[in-house]
Amino acid sequence: MKMNIPEVSQPRVVIVGGGFGGLQLAKSLKNKDFQVVLVDKHNYHTFQPLLYQVATAGLEPDSIAFPIRKVFKHYNQFYFRMAKVERVDTERKRLETPIGYLNYDYLVIATGSETNYFGKQDIANESLPMKSIPEALNLRSLVLQNFEKALTATEVGERDSLMNFVVIGGGPTGVELAGALAELKKEVLPRDYPDLDLRRMQIHLIEAGPKLLGAMSEVSSSKSLEFLKDLGVNVYTSTMVTGIQNNVVATDKGGAFYSHSIIWTAGVEGAPIEGLKPEAIIRGKRVKVNEFNQVEGYDNIFAIGDVAAMLTTELPKGHPMLAQVALQQGKLLGENLLNLRRGKALKPFKYKDLGTMATVGRHKAVAELPWWKTQGIIAWYLWMLVHLMALVGFRNRVVVFINWMWSYFNYDKGVRLIIRPFVRKKTVDEQPIDHLQTSTSIKSA
Amino acid sequence: MKMNIPEVSQPRVVIVGGGFGGLQLAKSLKNKDFQVVLVDKHNYHTFQPLLYQVATAGLEPDSIAFPIRKVFKHYNQFYFRMAKVERVDTERKRLETPIGYLNYDYLVIATGSETNYFGKQDIANESLPMKSIPEALNLRSLVLQNFEKALTATEVGERDSLMNFVVIGGGPTGVELAGALAELKKEVLPRDYPDLDLRRMQIHLIEAGPKLLGAMSEVSSSKSLEFLKDLGVNVYTSTMVTGIQNNVVATDKGGAFYSHSIIWTAGVEGAPIEGLKPEAIIRGKRVKVNEFNQVEGYDNIFAIGDVAAMLTTELPKGHPMLAQVALQQGKLLGENLLNLRRGKALKPFKYKDLGTMATVGRHKAVAELPWWKTQGIIAWYLWMLVHLMALVGFRNRVVVFINWMWSYFNYDKGVRLIIRPFVRKKTVDEQPIDHLQTSTSIKSA
Repeated sequence: MKMNIPEVSQPRVVIVGGGFGGLQLAKSLKNKDFQVVLVDKHNYHTFQPLLYQVATAGLEPDSIAFPIRKVFKHYNQFYFRMAKVERVDTERKRLETPIGYLNYDYLVIATGSETNYFGKQDIANESLPMKSIPEALNLRSLVLQNFEKALTATEVGERDSLMNFVVIGGGPTGVELAGALAELKKEVLPRDYPDLDLRRMQIHLIEAGPKLLGAMSEVSSSKSLEFLKDLGVNVYTSTMVTGIQNNVVATDKGGAFYSHSIIWTAGVEGAPIEGLKPEAIIRGKRVKVNEFNQVEGYDNIFAIGDVAAMLTTELPKGHPMLAQVALQQGKLLGENLLNLRRGKALKPFKYKDLGTMATVGRHKAVAELPWWKTQGIIAWYLWMLVHLMALVGFRNRVVVFINWMWSYFNYDKGVRLIIRPFVRKKTVDEQPIDHLQTSTSIKSA
Repeated sequence: MKMNIPEVSQPRVVIVGGGFGGLQLAKSLKNKDFQVVLVDKHNYHTFQPLLYQVATAGLEPDSIAFPIRKVFKHYNQFYFRMAKVERVDTERKRLETPIGYLNYDYLVIATGSETNYFGKQDIANESLPMKSIPEALNLRSLVLQNFEKALTATEVGERDSLMNFVVIGGGPTGVELAGALAELKKEVLPRDYPDLDLRRMQIHLIEAGPKLLGAMSEVSSSKSLEFLKDLGVNVYTSTMVTGIQNNVVATDKGGAFYSHSIIWTAGVEGAPIEGLKPEAIIRGKRVKVNEFNQVEGYDNIFAIGDVAAMLTTELPKGHPMLAQVALQQGKLLGENLLNLRRGKALKPFKYKDLGTMATVGRHKAVAELPWWKTQGIIAWYLWMLVHLMALVGFRNRVVVFINWMWSYFNYDKGVRLIIRPFVRKKTVDEQPIDHLQTSTSIKSA
């Protein structure tokens, strides 16, 4: 069955994925003599940088999501279809989906990245990922459910385990999440659970590499470590998680972390579409592209953003998986598709690093701008401003701003709601833990 | 196992249900020489009057929910436990829950009401209720999913059915929901789905009684009918739904309504606790109480709000199921529990009718105050003001206000998000419909 999209004389650009890259590309093709079809499995764009605030009850899920149809309401020859792409048939130049196939003249893969457990099934079963809004909501529910359970736990080891957190992965997501959990511990949970001894609650952050925020400079790494320690987070660097069983995290440094709330932020991989030539997919499941974001071996298929790997001598692993890269690639590809159509030469992509930031907590952030590195209160205000401006939609900006002001002045996180309880789908039999202990035998950094 | 609550010298009041009544009662017992334990299956209070706006993408779910623990953060001897009550053992004066049993000195049943399908399994299977936030979110997802599906439907009858709505029940919920759907049709959906012929979308409102808003006056009923007609809603009064099968609604007046989005708001019943004497439960599963809200046959068990039926000569069926009744009963019961403890006489409940309102759409509402009936724009502003002030929590009020202003000036509903797709649990085999038709053989009112 053919997907129900009018056939027109203009060439059809099919974009898969409504993240930062896909959205930006569609915008840059506005009324530009192309027919544009955007396909996404969700009907909304997710502002991923703030997912951790949804997970920690600071923001409503609806304030970091934006309906895709709303972005494009005044576009000519623009079509959105909600569908999960099954595969691409590059011979017949068509995309296959459950709602029919779709022919393309140009295909753009902007499918982003997904959680990577490196094949470890026990980690996948026993930890929670945080790459989508439903996942962030699962995490919010789990955190609150575990605290409700802790109240009724009769055994001290179990109670501690219900209050403890293990965040695996010391990149921006892990650092920001651990910081937000520490603020919950400090400001919110003691008021909500006066009958629990919150001093026993432990937040562990485990990073395999030698430092936090591996992609940032030494000063940002060490400052973020200092901020996390100030907030009482136990940080373990150069420590590899080797397995999780029955709510116990084991590492290569020995020791065991007991926690019912284990969050995995330590791995991502590309989320390419099935059907591309095997040589186009490289390590980490990313799609190999040239300097014009053209996929290896195809002249009418492009990839942008997290899923695209543009390998150069300076960047042998491709660009970092950042919103900025996706946005800039989306914008340039829009121009290049026009160039292609007009018979002009394509412009090569050159990443303009506008800087990176991470926030740990109130007045505690690190920022690296092209001309300036700063940490602390100024970085924190800057972080808020940048994220507020980057959010899609005025309504979302206002609601997020209100929530941030509320939290700032009240030392509060307002949406501590278990709307849909999280129920773990167990694949391994759950067995009682024999010797619950709350301290670990390895020292935190 | 005993629930983990300290035993103290003060008598223990156990309140089941954190709705309007239960919350108000707990507030009126603040630091009053009682130990208060509030039990609810959710960790939040739901502001039910605005559920229909969540279902129609006008408000975020989190803005009409309020964390119960947050309400009571500075209370002495107050405990909240999240648990679904299994039964009460009135002999041993204890409540049984999955997290242990709980002894009480005074028990207050404030469990509210739930959807009643009058035993019709086909209606339960094929329609959606709207009594809780997850249910309202299911509805929001379903509405949007059906529109996405309509885009790809190849058969015109199926496409129409995917765009049609049948709201069963012409009480306030049904009227408000039908009105909000009509505004979606008028203002939002044509922009989101330019490729669909929205003129074919039908909204049917079916009411078994002779008029809409049966509990209100003639003028409010007829005016709300007029408002709905202005918005293009097809209203059928004195029409009883006899069954639903394969997305077709049948009524006693003949005719068939084809719709993939069928919403049931036509019946509620009390949600009492198991274990009470059978004679305490009357028609509609409500709990029979005397003028002090004392449950028939018990002197230490009370019921307030929707679940309580205080039968009098003027009110042979008890009070209407309204937030105001629950609030006033909760407040008085707080005083009476103190009176009981001090050996004073109990005060009988007297309902003070502060008025009722219902809104149909922009500038279209009906209001009946004790001293004034009004319809139209003033009633609409009044409705907004009253609901804004009644919301629990300043943050919620601000967020709701922002959303309303946004919708008002932009003719928009901002949160058209399918965060969790709705998947129907089918119990009847789904079969293709032979003769899809879009018109019905009976005339709307």
